[in-house]
Amino acid sequence: MRDLDEETAMGVSTGINQRLRTQRIETPSWAYGNSGTRFKVFAQPGVPRTVEEKIDDAAQVHAFTGVAPSIALHIPWDKVDDYSGLAKYAESAGLRIGTINSNVFQDDDYKLGSVTNPDPRIRAKALDHLLECVDIMDATGSRDLKLWFSDGTNYPGQDDIRARQDRLAEALAAVYRRLGPHQRMLLEYKLFEPAFYTTDVPDWGTAYAHCVELGEQAQVCVDTGHHAPGTNIEFIVAFLLRAGKLGAFDFNSRFYADDDLMVGAADPFQLFRIMYEVVRGGGYEADAGIAFMLDQCHNIEPKIPGQIRSVCNVQEATAKALLVDSEALAAAQRTGDVIAANDVFMDAYKTDVRPILAELRTEMGLEEDPLAAYQRSGYAERIVAERVGGHQAGWGA
Amino acid sequence: MRDLDEETAMGVSTGINQRLRTQRIETPSWAYGNSGTRFKVFAQPGVPRTVEEKIDDAAQVHAFTGVAPSIALHIPWDKVDDYSGLAKYAESAGLRIGTINSNVFQDDDYKLGSVTNPDPRIRAKALDHLLECVDIMDATGSRDLKLWFSDGTNYPGQDDIRARQDRLAEALAAVYRRLGPHQRMLLEYKLFEPAFYTTDVPDWGTAYAHCVELGEQAQVCVDTGHHAPGTNIEFIVAFLLRAGKLGAFDFNSRFYADDDLMVGAADPFQLFRIMYEVVRGGGYEADAGIAFMLDQCHNIEPKIPGQIRSVCNVQEATAKALLVDSEALAAAQRTGDVIAANDVFMDAYKTDVRPILAELRTEMGLEEDPLAAYQRSGYAERIVAERVGGHQAGWGA
Amino acid sequence: MRDLDEETAMGVSTGINQRLRTQRIETPSWAYGNSGTRFKVFAQPGVPRTVEEKIDDAAQVHAFTGVAPSIALHIPWDKVDDYSGLAKYAESAGLRIGTINSNVFQDDDYKLGSVTNPDPRIRAKALDHLLECVDIMDATGSRDLKLWFSDGTNYPGQDDIRARQDRLAEALAAVYRRLGPHQRMLLEYKLFEPAFYTTDVPDWGTAYAHCVELGEQAQVCVDTGHHAPGTNIEFIVAFLLRAGKLGAFDFNSRFYADDDLMVGAADPFQLFRIMYEVVRGGGYEADAGIAFMLDQCHNIEPKIPGQIRSVCNVQEATAKALLVDSEALAAAQRTGDVIAANDVFMDAYKTDVRPILAELRTEMGLEEDPLAAYQRSGYAERIVAERVGGHQAGWGA
Amino acid sequence: MRDLDEETAMGVSTGINQRLRTQRIETPSWAYGNSGTRFKVFAQPGVPRTVEEKIDDAAQVHAFTGVAPSIALHIPWDKVDDYSGLAKYAESAGLRIGTINSNVFQDDDYKLGSVTNPDPRIRAKALDHLLECVDIMDATGSRDLKLWFSDGTNYPGQDDIRARQDRLAEALAAVYRRLGPHQRMLLEYKLFEPAFYTTDVPDWGTAYAHCVELGEQAQVCVDTGHHAPGTNIEFIVAFLLRAGKLGAFDFNSRFYADDDLMVGAADPFQLFRIMYEVVRGGGYEADAGIAFMLDQCHNIEPKIPGQIRSVCNVQEATAKALLVDSEALAAAQRTGDVIAANDVFMDAYKTDVRPILAELRTEMGLEEDPLAAYQRSGYAERIVAERVGGHQAGWGA
Repeated sequence: MRDLDEETAMGVSTGINQRLRTQRIETPSWAYGNSGTRFKVFAQPGVPRTVEEKIDDAAQVHAFTGVAPSIALHIPWDKVDDYSGLAKYAESAGLRIGTINSNVFQDDDYKLGSVTNPDPRIRAKALDHLLECVDIMDATGSRDLKLWFSDGTNYPGQDDIRARQDRLAEALAAVYRRLGPHQRMLLEYKLFEPAFYTTDVPDWGTAYAHCVELGEQAQVCVDTGHHAPGTNIEFIVAFLLRAGKLGAFDFNSRFYADDDLMVGAADPFQLFRIMYEVVRGGGYEADAGIAFMLDQCHNIEPKIPGQIRSVCNVQEATAKALLVDSEALAAAQRTGDVIAANDVFMDAYKTDVRPILAELRTEMGLEEDPLAAYQRSGYAERIVAERVGGHQAGWGA
Repeated sequence: MRDLDEETAMGVSTGINQRLRTQRIETPSWAYGNSGTRFKVFAQPGVPRTVEEKIDDAAQVHAFTGVAPSIALHIPWDKVDDYSGLAKYAESAGLRIGTINSNVFQDDDYKLGSVTNPDPRIRAKALDHLLECVDIMDATGSRDLKLWFSDGTNYPGQDDIRARQDRLAEALAAVYRRLGPHQRMLLEYKLFEPAFYTTDVPDWGTAYAHCVELGEQAQVCVDTGHHAPGTNIEFIVAFLLRAGKLGAFDFNSRFYADDDLMVGAADPFQLFRIMYEVVRGGGYEADAGIAFMLDQCHNIEPKIPGQIRSVCNVQEATAKALLVDSEALAAAQRTGDVIAANDVFMDAYKTDVRPILAELRTEMGLEEDPLAAYQRSGYAERIVAERVGGHQAGWGA
Repeated sequence: MRDLDEETAMGVSTGINQRLRTQRIETPSWAYGNSGTRFKVFAQPGVPRTVEEKIDDAAQVHAFTGVAPSIALHIPWDKVDDYSGLAKYAESAGLRIGTINSNVFQDDDYKLGSVTNPDPRIRAKALDHLLECVDIMDATGSRDLKLWFSDGTNYPGQDDIRARQDRLAEALAAVYRRLGPHQRMLLEYKLFEPAFYTTDVPDWGTAYAHCVELGEQAQVCVDTGHHAPGTNIEFIVAFLLRAGKLGAFDFNSRFYADDDLMVGAADPFQLFRIMYEVVRGGGYEADAGIAFMLDQCHNIEPKIPGQIRSVCNVQEATAKALLVDSEALAAAQRTGDVIAANDVFMDAYKTDVRPILAELRTEMGLEEDPLAAYQRSGYAERIVAERVGGHQAGWGA
Repeated sequence: MRDLDEETAMGVSTGINQRLRTQRIETPSWAYGNSGTRFKVFAQPGVPRTVEEKIDDAAQVHAFTGVAPSIALHIPWDKVDDYSGLAKYAESAGLRIGTINSNVFQDDDYKLGSVTNPDPRIRAKALDHLLECVDIMDATGSRDLKLWFSDGTNYPGQDDIRARQDRLAEALAAVYRRLGPHQRMLLEYKLFEPAFYTTDVPDWGTAYAHCVELGEQAQVCVDTGHHAPGTNIEFIVAFLLRAGKLGAFDFNSRFYADDDLMVGAADPFQLFRIMYEVVRGGGYEADAGIAFMLDQCHNIEPKIPGQIRSVCNVQEATAKALLVDSEALAAAQRTGDVIAANDVFMDAYKTDVRPILAELRTEMGLEEDPLAAYQRSGYAERIVAERVGGHQAGWGA
């Protein structure tokens, strides 16, 4: 067992702190709006009514954690007339606009698919939207376009599985050609929902194969809630990093399906294992270009605290991952000492890293406990009082 | 292999037809309204705007299939001022009001639970609703009250698992005491959704234990989409029948979670196995009192055809179940002849029973193919033309 | 965040230590023998050849952990001529004989089932074995008979699901009648394997229903690896405790199916949640009579270290469960503060309890790190050198 | 509904019969030997003691079905001194030697992996075995080398996930270089078992990525029992066919994990959907080069009947797939008519194709019911009588 109290004084945690200090976690605009299940959306008081108010909320998360300096947008949920104006607004709030998320699943036309729809008119419409998202990236200076397709079928025979792949490949190629030299396409996969029989990009293999075909600017986005039961996510992370195809994470957690709970809430050990593979595979280095994003639904808990808690959970998992004694681990692995290797790994996980993070925050001029500090700030009460009238932001479902 | 062409002429199918003729499948009012996922509800033209229009649609399903003479209601989605008037309306349409489904998941108060909420005021409110449902049963002459609780938690520690069972037991007992002598309580279970960590009635064991404690008028409702992956549903059916605690089915099908696809669409063999256990265990007899209900979402397919197809799928599975040569099966089982027993069982499943059902319908004065007959009838076009304006029925989420 | 370093000095951990001191974890004789998968059993040097040598190994686990004073037997793997002699041997090694595990799955006769076999001769033979196990309990002074039935079918139609329940009930009743007044029957359930279509006791509901019918001396045994994906085990624990029907645990862990890994290795957070419900529901009290057993396969890791590590993992989860600030938790739950309640719960989990356990062991006259102490002891080298020749113990598959 | 009785006379089935006639299904040598679970192998009388006896049994399957003309070998289970002699023996029995299956999971050295083992000596040994298998292919004239690696880890931290991929890639490349111009490497994937934390080739994506890197002679083998719950296998089949990377099937079926039941026994509808995608994607054409193999365990049913039943199940699924009215299906898909498209698809599935297959067999000079014919033949009784003494073949576990 590593004695952290002593090591903190000795400088081991200093090295970790320097690495933790550079961490960047992106929060999504939609996490600040109302969300729910198909059964009910429980509205919360104080929820933003405009993109600017979402940015204000995201700025709070950054203010208290110090590691969340960007906000992802979702088009058309965050549609505005002036995107460069929006980027300036974000800047004035201490943030920048991050990933642009496309949405080709909420128009009535997309009932049977968007870019994979059998109807060429609808495919063209969907493609137009994706290209428009690249326009928005140009205006906001965003590097990444995240593509999630809800496309799929509900019934066997409903459509031609293979033809849909052809259509998908065609649309992806058109978008890829439109990318600027410093822009990237992040292709997300998901096992199911809202499609309940086939999904056109159901797993990492499908996303990977398309990205390889497209080229270097196409990368895979791993949403930690989008896998079949039993899937070893850290294996996928390690594999994609080795192949140079890991582009981003959508962090959240789940006990069952795409539950979209706060990351680390359901299986903190899994989050640690994932972050370990990120570190191990070089994905934590700034030049690896991996985008660490949250993508969650705070259906019953308050939004800003939910985001702050999630950012902290990622930080804790990262701190533990950085604590793994890699030399001792490699030695135990080399000699096939199963229990010793597992012990070295678990030693880092079992360590309570909250003192390290408290120290880090103090160094960064922040309060030790971001959530408590936010709650003391009065911001929550203020937005409830001020955000009266108008139309609360939501998923638009 | 049984030669059905010959047997049809010889009378084997006659016996089956007599049993199929007595089948009763209940359709739910909400299947005729709009439904969707948390991502999008795709509205369909011609969807009912009132309970009466839902009854009209259900009457179509019965008119073409001959085996769907009742409609389940969902309160408050189907709230009206005059329930006995509604019952008369149904009667005039050739239907009767079936199961009353309670809804304690769509009021803002129920964010953290209804009858299991830590707040006694909210529990009392939920209980009031349940008791009101029994009032409605009195007015409509319904026999069954179906209780599905979305109650549960999303995060470890959020609430006390055990205390919630105490609260649940208390509410169930209060409702049970309110039942008339010929009324029943059907307790439904579901693994997850909308709760994503614990669900207060997550499995058949929980529902069963509460029903045993309550008494004879409490029975379990099996929703075929509410189980963990790999669960053997026909085992549960057989077990509950043996224990005298199988009260009802909510039929639908799924590839992943609670997908609510048309029953038999995802795994027709499973539906056959379930219906075989129903027949084997005496559950198909009229005096068994088991309610066979559909509970599906037609998110992308038209509603009335979706219900007709589902009714036909249940009929086909039932016909196959009735075809199993039980003597040959028992003989093979007795001697431990694994392959022979499986062969006898599969022989029935592999049989194309559509000729039997066509014959049955002809005997009943119906057209052979209910879906084609409905589509020729012009009803679909008529409701699209007539149901303009007003507010389309939906789930109220 | 609770500052444990300070609290340790202040006495909070003292209270916890007193409770941890009374913990009793039973190790199984078969964990010391060879085990494997259907693909290969990798034999390990030094593995016991006799029951006595298994007892010697179990005594080592107790010697270094101080909380593993009993050993479970598996009949016929541990068959001897003189069971009271065996009990004395155990006593001389500082142990007592714990649970007697029956085995009705390895005789050629049991290919199609034991107590549920369609052949009455085989059922009688299986029942005889179970009754013989009670004789052994009488001789060894064991309190508990653990019944796990591999009985089930591989193919639809292979046997009658319901008739098998009748046969099961009959056999259980016969065994129950044979129990002495201070003996208990523990009925274990398992989703699948070795049966691949139906299993006759597949879930807790089935075990529970049979135990209720049998009477107070019949209780359910929860094997933590025997559930469908997504099953919430701590819910089952809470439910069974509330119903007075939780009799025992078979601890192990899994990522996929019944992987039988070291408990806590796959999901330490789940183990914590389970132990929290045990504590919350009164199951940790000595008079609750719950048997905490390990049931694992150390296929690739050494056996004794695997057991020691597992005992420590249970201790750590228990320590964290005892650390939960129940007053703060109840307050947050009462007010519906989801994030605060989850935070209180996680605070305990995130705490590094290894210092508490080190202190506990020192108080008990043990070394702080049981595994390191065992490894230094030379026992491992000694048994490799001494246990030459003979036939290594295994599963007898 | 298609009226097959009439169509049979009219020639529709004739076209299907011509296509069914060309079908080739390979049976595996190990299916004729004893198999079981980790709990017990139930030996069966009459089981082969030598490779030649396995070939004799496989010849029976071919004799009665007419579509199983080759037998896969498993090295070292089928090790002989003279492989060209063995090929001649097969030829004299009316068979040819099919796929060569390597085995690097049953030597004690492979406890922690074969080609991915951290120990270079063990990796070299494993590679030697794989190269030896190519030698055997040269001698037997086999086209395909099937590689399944049980390699993986049981515990987090046990070994380096990424380094294992490097080692795997190195070994695969060495084997690939050794292949003759007309030989292929088939890389199989499996979610878990016998490894219980990571598996080095866990999913199709991993196998696909390695095969792409290796070149055209490397293809993916899809074992229908090797996926996570909920995985859509027909999607993978369609995807791999589109990418030119589907090399082979290992057919079997499962309700839970890798249950290895008779193919089509657990989900005949899934088998139909898979065969439909094979046909749709051109994989059924002889020049597609796809190997259709059985890979099952007949733990409780007799071996030869189990293989015959499985061959028939694949034939039935294929016949149904060939029956799909592709023009009507395409028309319904084009217009987005979900129910009509599903109906066209289901129409083929619901058809009882046993009369078509009976006709096919008559045309081929076979009896209509292969299983009944085999059972009448007396072969089963003969091998029980004759195969006395010696050592029954098994998995060598």
